[in-house]
Amino acid sequence: MAERGDREAFVTLATNDTYALGCLVLGNSLRQRAQTTRKLVVMITPGVTQPMRNQLARVFDMIYDVNLLDSRDAANLQLLGRPDLSVTFTKLHCWRLTMFDKAVFLDADTLVLQNVDELFDREELSAAPDAGWPDCFNSGVFVFRPSEETYDSLLKFAMSQGSFDGGDQGLLNMYFRDWATKDIARHLPFIYNVVSQAFYSYLPAFTQFKDSVKIVHFIGATKPWHHPYNTATKEVTPLPETGHNKDYLQIWWDIFMSFVQPTLDPSLVSTSAPVLASYHMTLFAANHMLFSRMLICVYETDF
Amino acid sequence: MAERGDREAFVTLATNDTYALGCLVLGNSLRQRAQTTRKLVVMITPGVTQPMRNQLARVFDMIYDVNLLDSRDAANLQLLGRPDLSVTFTKLHCWRLTMFDKAVFLDADTLVLQNVDELFDREELSAAPDAGWPDCFNSGVFVFRPSEETYDSLLKFAMSQGSFDGGDQGLLNMYFRDWATKDIARHLPFIYNVVSQAFYSYLPAFTQFKDSVKIVHFIGATKPWHHPYNTATKEVTPLPETGHNKDYLQIWWDIFMSFVQPTLDPSLVSTSAPVLASYHMTLFAANHMLFSRMLICVYETDF
Repeated sequence: MAERGDREAFVTLATNDTYALGCLVLGNSLRQRAQTTRKLVVMITPGVTQPMRNQLARVFDMIYDVNLLDSRDAANLQLLGRPDLSVTFTKLHCWRLTMFDKAVFLDADTLVLQNVDELFDREELSAAPDAGWPDCFNSGVFVFRPSEETYDSLLKFAMSQGSFDGGDQGLLNMYFRDWATKDIARHLPFIYNVVSQAFYSYLPAFTQFKDSVKIVHFIGATKPWHHPYNTATKEVTPLPETGHNKDYLQIWWDIFMSFVQPTLDPSLVSTSAPVLASYHMTLFAANHMLFSRMLICVYETDF
Repeated sequence: MAERGDREAFVTLATNDTYALGCLVLGNSLRQRAQTTRKLVVMITPGVTQPMRNQLARVFDMIYDVNLLDSRDAANLQLLGRPDLSVTFTKLHCWRLTMFDKAVFLDADTLVLQNVDELFDREELSAAPDAGWPDCFNSGVFVFRPSEETYDSLLKFAMSQGSFDGGDQGLLNMYFRDWATKDIARHLPFIYNVVSQAFYSYLPAFTQFKDSVKIVHFIGATKPWHHPYNTATKEVTPLPETGHNKDYLQIWWDIFMSFVQPTLDPSLVSTSAPVLASYHMTLFAANHMLFSRMLICVYETDF
């Protein structure tokens, strides 16, 4: 019989090279910082380049190729005139990972601060409340049981009901609609999915509980890789008005610089792959970059 | 045996005439709009004037005088050097309303949109999650059982532990600390305490569930009475950047103009009582008023 650690996995998703970068930091946070004993899986779509796939293979035990849509799904979606559900469906592929008994999904923009292997003691579907509407769970972190049956059922549900927010969160909340009222054990404590801007709305609670935060989630349009990082001082400078917590951004960058950057495939730092083209840049370029396709904000002070 | 409606009550608190105005609208929302069958109680401190007491007596079944501090509490607080806890303690007085078997506390800046008498089927302590940190409950709406024993125990706890946010919410969350993990029935659905700015953080959920919202809570420094109201058009104009939902503000003002304003004691519309001194004013004055002690923003277009 296989060890429990082989039958349980953390799963994430990258739809392009930029989010793959998030996955690399997330994977390293699970391995290096949180010392997980479980497997790491990354689901990728064709939008992820071959050099980035090689990079992901250094950190993840399994790379699972998914299409934005199955051909079967595409046909159905076309019939229903709902091509917008394709992105929603991508995350649902995680239920097809039936080589695992149980799994924990983590968005590519999450970061694990402390070991969270105890999450595998929870049942499907366990998730933390969404700060915006706490009777909904946030689908950036959830415990699930891979099952083809559940996958098919979710797909059917999606095609008949759609998603009230156009994304996976609305869909999963409608499918697992008794989450808010049925079983307190399926409510993960908020420390497993703290929005990095939480302290803006209720600072005293953040102050009171911050030492117990285990997973942080950089929700919103600005991601950790958008904030300028100074290679001389090794400090990140949070972009104003994003509300991101500097301590969390610093941890993200520390992991990136310690474990991801040193082993980066050289092709990813060339113009052919835009992701890291801006790796060495001036502050001006770093700011400009927010409006371009270049995505990493590292600048050196000796320019 | 007394009817259940006599042994159960909605309870609110006014520490000055301005918040008493909120209580008047809240009380009318419970009676006129939500058609409650339960008793209405307002706790008031000496900061509420006699004319306003008379006004409250028209709506509430019971006016319960409380001091910001008992003399006994004052002595203890002085010993502990924590005079800041006095405001926190004021809300705790609700546990002394032992003429009732069960009660629902509502902050003066809440508004009841639909009948919520079913809340009396819940047990102490039931409350809805706080959007800022959803493992804490928001103490603007909660179900409790009046009990001198609980009151004493809360008081002792407050004096030994203090409150992590300096207010009643931090204190009650520490005292009822198993709320987040013990019993899903003590989690009131969010529709019983929706922050009026909720749609800013997760608009799709607000859109999906807005028809079921039962209680709205105008948290933050700007209250419904701060927004300018035009007596000619009978419309409120939400102050920019407060994020308050116009529909909710309009309901608040409709209740104020229909049930509170017509019966206002004349002394409350004179300069001797500042609360309603600005009742008829120009838009300029209405805006200026935000920086003054005058509190109601009604203006007429024919000035």
